[in-house]
Amino acid sequence: MTGPGLVLRERRPQGTCVELAPGLALGARPFVVMAGPCAVEDERQIHEAAAAVAQAGCPVLRGGAFKPRTSPYTFQGLGAAGVRLLADAANRHGLAAVTEILDPADLPLFEGVALLQVGARNMQNFALLRKLALINKPVLLKRGPSATVKEWLLAAEYLLAGGNSQVVLCERGIKTFETEMRNTLDLAAVALARELSHLPVLADPSHGTGRRSLIAPLCRAAFALGADGVIIEVHPCPERALSDGAQSLDFKGFAEIMQALYAPLPAIARAMSASAQ
Amino acid sequence: MTGPGLVLRERRPQGTCVELAPGLALGARPFVVMAGPCAVEDERQIHEAAAAVAQAGCPVLRGGAFKPRTSPYTFQGLGAAGVRLLADAANRHGLAAVTEILDPADLPLFEGVALLQVGARNMQNFALLRKLALINKPVLLKRGPSATVKEWLLAAEYLLAGGNSQVVLCERGIKTFETEMRNTLDLAAVALARELSHLPVLADPSHGTGRRSLIAPLCRAAFALGADGVIIEVHPCPERALSDGAQSLDFKGFAEIMQALYAPLPAIARAMSASAQ
Amino acid sequence: MTGPGLVLRERRPQGTCVELAPGLALGARPFVVMAGPCAVEDERQIHEAAAAVAQAGCPVLRGGAFKPRTSPYTFQGLGAAGVRLLADAANRHGLAAVTEILDPADLPLFEGVALLQVGARNMQNFALLRKLALINKPVLLKRGPSATVKEWLLAAEYLLAGGNSQVVLCERGIKTFETEMRNTLDLAAVALARELSHLPVLADPSHGTGRRSLIAPLCRAAFALGADGVIIEVHPCPERALSDGAQSLDFKGFAEIMQALYAPLPAIARAMSASAQ
Amino acid sequence: MTGPGLVLRERRPQGTCVELAPGLALGARPFVVMAGPCAVEDERQIHEAAAAVAQAGCPVLRGGAFKPRTSPYTFQGLGAAGVRLLADAANRHGLAAVTEILDPADLPLFEGVALLQVGARNMQNFALLRKLALINKPVLLKRGPSATVKEWLLAAEYLLAGGNSQVVLCERGIKTFETEMRNTLDLAAVALARELSHLPVLADPSHGTGRRSLIAPLCRAAFALGADGVIIEVHPCPERALSDGAQSLDFKGFAEIMQALYAPLPAIARAMSASAQ
Repeated sequence: MTGPGLVLRERRPQGTCVELAPGLALGARPFVVMAGPCAVEDERQIHEAAAAVAQAGCPVLRGGAFKPRTSPYTFQGLGAAGVRLLADAANRHGLAAVTEILDPADLPLFEGVALLQVGARNMQNFALLRKLALINKPVLLKRGPSATVKEWLLAAEYLLAGGNSQVVLCERGIKTFETEMRNTLDLAAVALARELSHLPVLADPSHGTGRRSLIAPLCRAAFALGADGVIIEVHPCPERALSDGAQSLDFKGFAEIMQALYAPLPAIARAMSASAQ
Repeated sequence: MTGPGLVLRERRPQGTCVELAPGLALGARPFVVMAGPCAVEDERQIHEAAAAVAQAGCPVLRGGAFKPRTSPYTFQGLGAAGVRLLADAANRHGLAAVTEILDPADLPLFEGVALLQVGARNMQNFALLRKLALINKPVLLKRGPSATVKEWLLAAEYLLAGGNSQVVLCERGIKTFETEMRNTLDLAAVALARELSHLPVLADPSHGTGRRSLIAPLCRAAFALGADGVIIEVHPCPERALSDGAQSLDFKGFAEIMQALYAPLPAIARAMSASAQ
Repeated sequence: MTGPGLVLRERRPQGTCVELAPGLALGARPFVVMAGPCAVEDERQIHEAAAAVAQAGCPVLRGGAFKPRTSPYTFQGLGAAGVRLLADAANRHGLAAVTEILDPADLPLFEGVALLQVGARNMQNFALLRKLALINKPVLLKRGPSATVKEWLLAAEYLLAGGNSQVVLCERGIKTFETEMRNTLDLAAVALARELSHLPVLADPSHGTGRRSLIAPLCRAAFALGADGVIIEVHPCPERALSDGAQSLDFKGFAEIMQALYAPLPAIARAMSASAQ
Repeated sequence: MTGPGLVLRERRPQGTCVELAPGLALGARPFVVMAGPCAVEDERQIHEAAAAVAQAGCPVLRGGAFKPRTSPYTFQGLGAAGVRLLADAANRHGLAAVTEILDPADLPLFEGVALLQVGARNMQNFALLRKLALINKPVLLKRGPSATVKEWLLAAEYLLAGGNSQVVLCERGIKTFETEMRNTLDLAAVALARELSHLPVLADPSHGTGRRSLIAPLCRAAFALGADGVIIEVHPCPERALSDGAQSLDFKGFAEIMQALYAPLPAIARAMSASAQ
């Protein structure tokens, strides 16, 4: 990396904690699970999702309002109204909210949102990054589907160099030749990003695989290799979801995963830290 | 393609001509060569380049002013001043100018520019596309380095659906595993894009290969398969270029290529059209 | 390249000619078109194909007998009988034959075959390459679908280093993320291979794209950038082909392409050589 | 999958155990760690490695004797002598041996080897697979670096359909655009292969990443998502290794990883099985 290298681990060997709310930080153990629907569809859907997410013990609600879609004729999200519905639902259930921003001109709409997502397609939208570097709010930077880890860290460097050091990285699957999965969740890159950088790193197994059945094992793997959290799609009724239904969990499946995931984590953590001594 | 499909060949079997200046159109024969430096560096450099481009018989001057760069510490272009220098140089030599726009807020700066480039990293920057759909100026949409032809056409569809049908496609090399070339110029995609869409299609062998020696043969191939033009990097002194020196031609090399390229084209065109009867 | 570099252009700046039959060489102009069905299916089919190929003025008949297939339950070719049928059909129509060899133990079966193909999946089957290095017969080395040009040349180096310098390279499409084409025909790699190596280089637009409509433009492009020939799939009745029907031409389509391709080539060649002076 | 689908999970929902030696099976818990040098270099090296592997509690010794190398001028392994040295060393320390076979003609040399490896480059070498289908010995089928999971399973299907059901799958990293790692270890494919097939699945984090520092976290992740084992490179003196030194562990590093890996596994396993109830 030619230049300052503000994102590099050597700058902060102990790692960075990004605070989303009082008492809720990414980069500090414990492992954080964020969950919610791909898109905010209406008030009832997002409130039901928020209730289920809160009940499962997850502290962060996700939900897309401005949706970047490959085709202009696909559902593009509820926009400003979606952000409001998401923030309300999160607030009512004591959750922090995370959602994607596409256009810096929309920034005033995101006041109730704790974590602004830069989507994978915008990882190298430098005009957007430069503007998010100027605000005082955490940014979730998704890795582009064909970006190297170095390109991803350099995109984060735009944020830090511009003045915003509250940056969280998120691996959401890369493009490969695999056809049975929507993307290939690159857990090796999660491990590498944590080695090279002091920023917290999440994994998104829902977008990363597009297969419900793989979410639980990949969440456990992400935890075991040291990721700081995961982000999962949950929907009251996946079959009727306006987007990404195939990879969304229903509430029952979600509760089971949370159970299967959270229950062993303390024991795993104890065992791993014991063996590390 | 679910939805209108405004970009599809069947909508305009005869193809679309995009006019850059009176008497200068893309999509109508003859084949158009655009040339110029990767980045506008100073007044002298861009004027020398413009003179060489004009002398070689190319009608369009390229030159980057807002440069999207992987690292925030790399030369980012001269910005607004660069656009002015480019437009002046083009104007003085009777050329049309093409340069990249990163941020729609910069639009007023581009008045003297005939063709606005959306760079490969921004192919799916839908906020930018939506705004460029509202203006009355031709847009050059570069293909993302990992985008499928369908994703590329759907990005163009955002422009047409939003009201701007003056769109030119440009293949600039895809990411592959090849290490001897900077990218892999995907000429098959040029042929496919021309089959599927009525929009003019260009190839960029400079970015597409990063090797000076391959520019001439790939230009001839692009012509032979029906591309509407090429865009080539030329620099007064490639060794001292602030970016992309290794793939830039000097003026002598450029003149030779123009000679080797243009001289046989009429004969090739005659031969091909004769054999097609 | 660490080591002798027998394949490199600098070893034989003038290029290598590989002779398939008296008066028929690859690497010497003129451009050679090889054609025939994906697989030899029965005597009648291959004889009809041979007749059409000969009538179109192509000097080489292709046809698979030992077919490497992804699934063990897909048609695997006629094996030894297929090689015999191909050699007979070629012989009867004054053509040279090319077909794939999978197992060096089968070598005695290939006596009537002028050019032994090493398929893309076997490009790095070094046990096979080492044995083909010991024989006195031309080998057609297809590029692996994810191989770099350097890896391809190093696979050819195994043949030359082992004693067989009658090697022809063939680009047949690489794996990319494109879904509208079966593979991505990498014409830039054809140009690069010709620059780096003295060996003849062919392109296979049938496997390379899987789309009939792209074969003619890509053949012209291959010619225009300096390839030494192309290899095309032709079948008496593509709809009934046991493999690769969708990309095969019928005899009428093939004759049209040959007409469209061959007719302008002399004029293109004259124009290009005139402009090169 | 068109055809019998012998590899599919539904054929044997409980999974397949492949026995390497009495009391040593892959596919049955516990998790198996295989270790040893990339290549057998001499008697002393492989005996030292075997001793270290045995002492760390790993039951399987790896070591290459026939090495498929991209260049003919790179060290190609000790061949038959290497297989003998490996089998002796394994035998003397009570270990099972695994090594790669390139040519079925060499089969008689592999009597003392418990597990025959088909390397990534040969995953679709169907001539080799057909012959290994006829023997009564376990085969380790590495995934090709650009193969889909389905193509990998269909290659395994060649073995099962031909009569050999003692097949173990091994993910060893895929080709991606990442440059900081040698390959991208595709743990999602490990999870998917275990879902789709009843065969045991291993991961190879040494080849898969080429970085020593990533081996421990990726081994833990492989365990946590349900892999049946891992295969790791260990060398008495990585700096002097004839191949793959950069990704090999020395004995001290290896012992630390084994400690860090094995110690928590029982606790993790207990916790996970408790939470699954």
